Amino acid sequence: MPTLPLPPGSTLGILGGGQLGRMLSQAAARLGFDVVILDPEPDSPAGRVSTAQIVAAYDDPEALTALGRAADVVTFEFENVPAASIERLAEAGALVAPGPTALRVSQDRVEEKTFLNAVGAPTVEFAVVDTLDDLVLGLTTLGLPALLKTRREGYDGKGQVWIRTLEEAPAALESLGGRPAILEARASFVRELSVIAARDWDGHMAVYPLGENRHEGGVLRTTLAPATVDEKTQVRARAIAEAILDGLDYVGVLGVELFDIPVAGGEDVLLVNEIAPRVHNTGHWTQDGCVCDQFEQHIRAVAGWPLGPTSAHARVEMKNLLGDEVEQWRALAGKPDERLHLYGKAEARPGRKMAHVNRVLGAV
Amino acid sequence: MPTLPLPPGSTLGILGGGQLGRMLSQAAARLGFDVVILDPEPDSPAGRVSTAQIVAAYDDPEALTALGRAADVVTFEFENVPAASIERLAEAGALVAPGPTALRVSQDRVEEKTFLNAVGAPTVEFAVVDTLDDLVLGLTTLGLPALLKTRREGYDGKGQVWIRTLEEAPAALESLGGRPAILEARASFVRELSVIAARDWDGHMAVYPLGENRHEGGVLRTTLAPATVDEKTQVRARAIAEAILDGLDYVGVLGVELFDIPVAGGEDVLLVNEIAPRVHNTGHWTQDGCVCDQFEQHIRAVAGWPLGPTSAHARVEMKNLLGDEVEQWRALAGKPDERLHLYGKAEARPGRKMAHVNRVLGAV
Repeated sequence: MPTLPLPPGSTLGILGGGQLGRMLSQAAARLGFDVVILDPEPDSPAGRVSTAQIVAAYDDPEALTALGRAADVVTFEFENVPAASIERLAEAGALVAPGPTALRVSQDRVEEKTFLNAVGAPTVEFAVVDTLDDLVLGLTTLGLPALLKTRREGYDGKGQVWIRTLEEAPAALESLGGRPAILEARASFVRELSVIAARDWDGHMAVYPLGENRHEGGVLRTTLAPATVDEKTQVRARAIAEAILDGLDYVGVLGVELFDIPVAGGEDVLLVNEIAPRVHNTGHWTQDGCVCDQFEQHIRAVAGWPLGPTSAHARVEMKNLLGDEVEQWRALAGKPDERLHLYGKAEARPGRKMAHVNRVLGAV
Repeated sequence: MPTLPLPPGSTLGILGGGQLGRMLSQAAARLGFDVVILDPEPDSPAGRVSTAQIVAAYDDPEALTALGRAADVVTFEFENVPAASIERLAEAGALVAPGPTALRVSQDRVEEKTFLNAVGAPTVEFAVVDTLDDLVLGLTTLGLPALLKTRREGYDGKGQVWIRTLEEAPAALESLGGRPAILEARASFVRELSVIAARDWDGHMAVYPLGENRHEGGVLRTTLAPATVDEKTQVRARAIAEAILDGLDYVGVLGVELFDIPVAGGEDVLLVNEIAPRVHNTGHWTQDGCVCDQFEQHIRAVAGWPLGPTSAHARVEMKNLLGDEVEQWRALAGKPDERLHLYGKAEARPGRKMAHVNRVLGAV
């Protein structure tokens, strides 16, 4: 096992070569690290800015062994990494961060909510659904409408369906193709917040200010940060994030999506929607709002460097450019306060995340 | 010839794979460009963060043709590019920026000073030195001490020698190995300033605030920016930079080193020491002091994008880490306001530029 902190010149491995891997790789390079990407797509966005790319499937045993040997520490840009892959990387001599617990918990929505509740992080009520009977019982208990999701995989609104009447239940279950599912009660939330937080190998933690998010069709459109929240809400969000990080013995950056529910005559209720054991789309604003952005923070954490500061020096609105919205680059190139971050993706498929823009709204 | 502005997904070629090429490549990637590096050293600092590297000499005809075909626009991180290389790149279909005039002028100190004086940019007095007779005459005219330099090449204090007495003249000339030389009068300057400026294909210009530089043994140690200068000096420096950019029909970022000489009862005199047709070590402070740093600015200029803003939002002290000073990374990693930029160089040879640190001193 390598000794921490990793000196410049060490090599980081990243599973996944998309835009998150790309921005992680660039942050790592600024700190003097070499980066090796593992991704099945040749010339991936991250591979094109990294020292090397291994082109192979994420569960390819030989590729994982090669990556584990080349890298002092291995991390990932997405959470659906098979547990067996992690074991193989560790066997090849690499540190892996975040560790297997965080991955296992976040890969299954039932495990995730069970864990969250156990560490004192509240969620919506939920029910495990394996059969139509489970589903009908769940709908009766949780009320209508309710949201049926696959337990595993699914992101950006895929693999989930709203059920508004009991009659819709069979078709909804069928639409998930027989995969194990979870039924979630509807949260009558006013807004969605998120908190990006980091923890290092020694248990130190650093939490960024809250962001306020707006989704369309299940896909993130904008994050406004720091969000306008009262001090109590910020403190509660921080406590939730820290409980999760400690509970997972986590190393790296983690994203926590929150529902902010107003309560008449009382304090807002914060429920955790889901966690992502990686840098997070709702943390992109930190690139232009903080001295140390979430990407550098993640590299610092996994490489055993001290965590960087998390206070915001500017208020930022982050906006995703999806599909052919990337053509806006031409207009945006001439707007100095709108910081354009392009991902180097050749094909602008509908809904594909192609770039984001951080509009700097002014000093905090 | 490609149409400007170059869309994201276009390819930039960079001659030179050192730290300047590395930081240019990273800036290009943020704007969605692919980058191909040409450098004889395999795994160069820039090659390791770029889409591809061609490993070949800078005057290798086949390599230049390959680079010219792969790239829509080609630029460089150093000024000693042979004119024939530029021609070959252009023949292969690439735009080249900055163009051949800027390179030719900056490659020869006599041509450079002649050009500067012609566009109204004052310099120290100088004399062309081919023989010992030229040198003795020059020393008689310019006075002692004076600085003898090779006309071509030489940087960071190499290829130059101070002459303090007439008796030292023969040995000084001999030390240059018979290469054509220039003798420069001593500038009794209080301080060295520099100005980083950019010009686009349409002739628009953007000039950063002045930096104040401190050298040791001919090598830059620190830049403090924005420098404390009166408004007239800033205006004069800007006018000098703009005259140079226009005079060279320049495209890209250019560094201008200035001597700031106090005059009793009058305004300071600004003399141009030298120009560098590329991003410049004294402009590294812009990474943490400006919204659009000199690297992004250069990419914007050569790719035909609008130039970015040049105002400083923070005062920054940039410090080079030379040789084993890079070991300070361990202490610096824990200092949040000292932004560390490491170049990924394996071998910390004495005096080698390994990294720099931007210490943010506060808002402007």
